[in-house]
Amino acid sequence: MTSASSLAETPSPPYYAVIFTSQRTEGDRGYEHMADRMVELARQQPGFLGVESVRGADGLGITVSYWASKEAIVAWKRNAEHQTAQCAGQRSWYADYLVRVASVERDYGK
Amino acid sequence: MTSASSLAETPSPPYYAVIFTSQRTEGDRGYEHMADRMVELARQQPGFLGVESVRGADGLGITVSYWASKEAIVAWKRNAEHQTAQCAGQRSWYADYLVRVASVERDYGK
Repeated sequence: MTSASSLAETPSPPYYAVIFTSQRTEGDRGYEHMADRMVELARQQPGFLGVESVRGADGLGITVSYWASKEAIVAWKRNAEHQTAQCAGQRSWYADYLVRVASVERDYGK
Repeated sequence: MTSASSLAETPSPPYYAVIFTSQRTEGDRGYEHMADRMVELARQQPGFLGVESVRGADGLGITVSYWASKEAIVAWKRNAEHQTAQCAGQRSWYADYLVRVASVERDYGK
């Protein structure tokens, strides 16, 4: 996902983070295309603040998206195109995954 | 970091997450050894709940560690061996990084 392969420039906390950790199944079966499309679509949602995404050679991936409010997270989860992707993810792309919704309280950098 | 390359089995929320996003410089210079040692050391800290860590081919990495309390996070940040690693990270291993401390409010999986 080249479109998310850098540090997100988020505002000062507080804001929200959705930590999505997943283990891919083998083979692409439309996954890369969907992943890029979901980042593109997420960027268009109200309250979207940024996204960071990495997948390792062993298939483990972590995508953290940042949001201005809980309402923005709920709206994104209910987005129709995103729901289709969630369905395919459960059925085919992910051997396992866990979503954690968190409130970012502080940050510090280099 | 093979010692952290799977989904963390965290308890039911609430708990805390430290989201560490970083961009590696080129070359190892002791990094892999330190990264493995830090995961090993973190696992021994009071309040440690789990860790997930991925680094992509382009050098972007996300490590999320999970903790029972804010106090546990502060204690881990102040750990002497960890502080030495933080120093070397700032100086040599990371072109850029951002740490976000967050309170996990809910989770759901496959």
